[in-house]
Amino acid sequence: MSVLIEKLRAIVGAPNVLTDGDLTAWEQDWRKRSRGKALAVVRPANAQQVADVVRACAEAGTSIVPQGGNTGLAVGSIPDDSGTQVLMSLQRMNAIRGIDAANLTMTVEAGCVLQTLQEAARNAGFLFPLSLAAEGSCTIGGNLATNAGGTQVVRYGNTRDLCLGLEVVTPQGEIWEGTSGLRKDNTGYDLRDLMIGSEGTLGIITAATMKLQPRPAAVLTALATLPTLEAAILLLSLARSTLGPGLSGFEVMNRFSLDLVRKRFPALRQPLPPAPWTVLLEQSDAESEAHGAAALEALLEKALERGLIDDTAIATSIEQANAMWHLRESITLAQAEEGPNIKHDISLPASAIGDFVEATDAALARALPGIRLVNFGHLGDGNLHYNVQCREGEDAQAFLRHEDEVNRIVYDAVEARCGSVSAEHGIGRLKLDEMSARKSSVALAMMRAIKRALDPAELLNPGRVLPPPATR
Amino acid sequence: MSVLIEKLRAIVGAPNVLTDGDLTAWEQDWRKRSRGKALAVVRPANAQQVADVVRACAEAGTSIVPQGGNTGLAVGSIPDDSGTQVLMSLQRMNAIRGIDAANLTMTVEAGCVLQTLQEAARNAGFLFPLSLAAEGSCTIGGNLATNAGGTQVVRYGNTRDLCLGLEVVTPQGEIWEGTSGLRKDNTGYDLRDLMIGSEGTLGIITAATMKLQPRPAAVLTALATLPTLEAAILLLSLARSTLGPGLSGFEVMNRFSLDLVRKRFPALRQPLPPAPWTVLLEQSDAESEAHGAAALEALLEKALERGLIDDTAIATSIEQANAMWHLRESITLAQAEEGPNIKHDISLPASAIGDFVEATDAALARALPGIRLVNFGHLGDGNLHYNVQCREGEDAQAFLRHEDEVNRIVYDAVEARCGSVSAEHGIGRLKLDEMSARKSSVALAMMRAIKRALDPAELLNPGRVLPPPATR
Repeated sequence: MSVLIEKLRAIVGAPNVLTDGDLTAWEQDWRKRSRGKALAVVRPANAQQVADVVRACAEAGTSIVPQGGNTGLAVGSIPDDSGTQVLMSLQRMNAIRGIDAANLTMTVEAGCVLQTLQEAARNAGFLFPLSLAAEGSCTIGGNLATNAGGTQVVRYGNTRDLCLGLEVVTPQGEIWEGTSGLRKDNTGYDLRDLMIGSEGTLGIITAATMKLQPRPAAVLTALATLPTLEAAILLLSLARSTLGPGLSGFEVMNRFSLDLVRKRFPALRQPLPPAPWTVLLEQSDAESEAHGAAALEALLEKALERGLIDDTAIATSIEQANAMWHLRESITLAQAEEGPNIKHDISLPASAIGDFVEATDAALARALPGIRLVNFGHLGDGNLHYNVQCREGEDAQAFLRHEDEVNRIVYDAVEARCGSVSAEHGIGRLKLDEMSARKSSVALAMMRAIKRALDPAELLNPGRVLPPPATR
Repeated sequence: MSVLIEKLRAIVGAPNVLTDGDLTAWEQDWRKRSRGKALAVVRPANAQQVADVVRACAEAGTSIVPQGGNTGLAVGSIPDDSGTQVLMSLQRMNAIRGIDAANLTMTVEAGCVLQTLQEAARNAGFLFPLSLAAEGSCTIGGNLATNAGGTQVVRYGNTRDLCLGLEVVTPQGEIWEGTSGLRKDNTGYDLRDLMIGSEGTLGIITAATMKLQPRPAAVLTALATLPTLEAAILLLSLARSTLGPGLSGFEVMNRFSLDLVRKRFPALRQPLPPAPWTVLLEQSDAESEAHGAAALEALLEKALERGLIDDTAIATSIEQANAMWHLRESITLAQAEEGPNIKHDISLPASAIGDFVEATDAALARALPGIRLVNFGHLGDGNLHYNVQCREGEDAQAFLRHEDEVNRIVYDAVEARCGSVSAEHGIGRLKLDEMSARKSSVALAMMRAIKRALDPAELLNPGRVLPPPATR
């Protein structure tokens, strides 16, 4: 093994091959659910070094786990516990290669932190709309590898929709230079989208050309309370037809989500009284603050008239708008403070969401009386974070014994309505069994065939997204 | 062979297996550049029949060419001239399976004609934005197989961006039921986008779930004349930042394009005098006709002030708007009437277009003095139809002798600026050599590996998109 380590040192420089000391930052997953052991943490500085590392590992028969900011939620970016895998961190590759203003594109290296991209875009007079809780530390390479979603998907799409081209190192250690700035290119198979969302199992993304958006003239934010989830779905339809593409955020929160925030973070002002459901609406207006406000007010008035909403608050300053988003973003932390919970990142057709929630809430209440439901998410994309919280005061061990049962109830209900058991977090190792059990066998066979074709030696992130070959 | 024909008759019914009579509609390509000979034309009625036909053909070792409306421009949907391939027409599979208004989706069979989808969406109160010249006869299956572009891409994206899920019959004759209505689904590799644009070489698309859009309150159309192509690029930037997502069309036409329309279709009124460049602008307004008109007028006034445009005409009725689009759409026909021409469907980063056109116009004028350039296209997507027209009165044979030289000059210039030699028309058989010579060898190797993995027997559309294995 030391032969490989020596080779890696020669490629990236000895200080960038870490084998001793505290490697927790690379070996432990974000939610601290899992911890692996790497043979070494290798930190290449450019695509050529990535390619050279891949070749050296291939020769040694050593597999590689690529990693960005290590903020993934599906345990896809840490090594297994064998101590035989190389953890490749892309964090040193953090250059913004260039901004092409006329083409509305930005070419960036995989290790760029998302917030850095947002700022670079803003400084150049544009918007890079990808936005999610981990934006201060996640990297664009990881966003691409997992096809991250976030809060602006209803208007701008997932990470996939924001990308025009990639630079990728293949499992053979070759560099595919595909950082295209083209909006149309029908020359052959869509390798870009195949790599996006493949979680480092088919290639290592080293750079990307991302779309920029014109900066909206104003961004307006409002909260509204609603009597039912069905009303929220109707409000979404109304918002889509009234605001058109101006609608840039549509988040939903059930009462218990915001009650938890009230309980755990009493200093956070909640502008509206508790209600069965609260929606956070955001409108990005191309024209002006006044125009945006008028459009949003008109929408909310119409919704009040139709009885879809009970009460509403429009932010009149950036601070107020940020405070509304902060409420939404505090739910996860409030949940953690309240004790153990079982998270589900699911998506459904909008038309099935009301029925799903009603039926699943009831089924869980029957199976586990006293259980509490933190249900919130990106309703505009049909994506709910449907999280099951322990009974009041229940200890973790007692509660987590029910994890399999809870998952079965939730995921059966999702599957019955043609939903997804991983809307935006990916598969990693965490959801492998769930996906394998529930996804079409024809699709799984195609996935296995593609993995075999592109990475026959199982060099890249083996056992993630697809089970290791021995167990297939 | 007759054993196979008998099997096919048993599967789809004898009247749907055509072997005699005039099969021109299926065997000849749209532009009449190529004609093949099918063993039989088979017309299945549902996905199960498609699967059964695939299995029967696989057993017999007979390859299949899937076909929609047969309006492709890259010779990808007709059989070769061996008389041994089965031509599978999807045209009988033309049901709209359903519209889900709350989810803004429509599930349709592959053989639905694009115009039928547009009308069904309109009747349900929505917009299906894919729009292209062949919309009266092309099918959504063909649009998906070729990732068709068209005139609304600047706002709504290519066909790929309009699709949420597919039903596909694999080369093994299995049905992948993936007509998802989900906007987020990160469970494994992106097989949907791999199938889209693969031109029937990896699977046969039998149905799809497509996104619907809210209908805009008003669609405004204008023409503007410009002194230079650089001015058009600046106008595009201005339109993007001023109109935001309202901008739904941005077409450019050089003087000679519209001169040809003037000459060949003198009855078509041209509202603006001849100018070096003319842009057709379209804005889809979510709010109202008055708001849309004010926004468009404000943009054009600003452009006049900055000297980007010289003159402008805003359509004041749907008839006037249609007449503007009709001018744009008459260019291809005017070209055909004027005599032979060599077409290129290229794309470039917006920032490279001005330089490309200047350099390539000059290079062609040097190589072939007197040659005429019909240059028009979807500037908003960086997509030009850069067509080289014969000298005045030149006969076809003399002119077409220069085809290789013209292509070399044009495509070398495209390649030097990181452009694409097939922006929206695909590869088929027509652009196979060009793509093979110019695309990254790493990307080509991945494409071949994927084809081998999913269709090892080369059953589906062999020799399209990728060369047949014997010649690789």
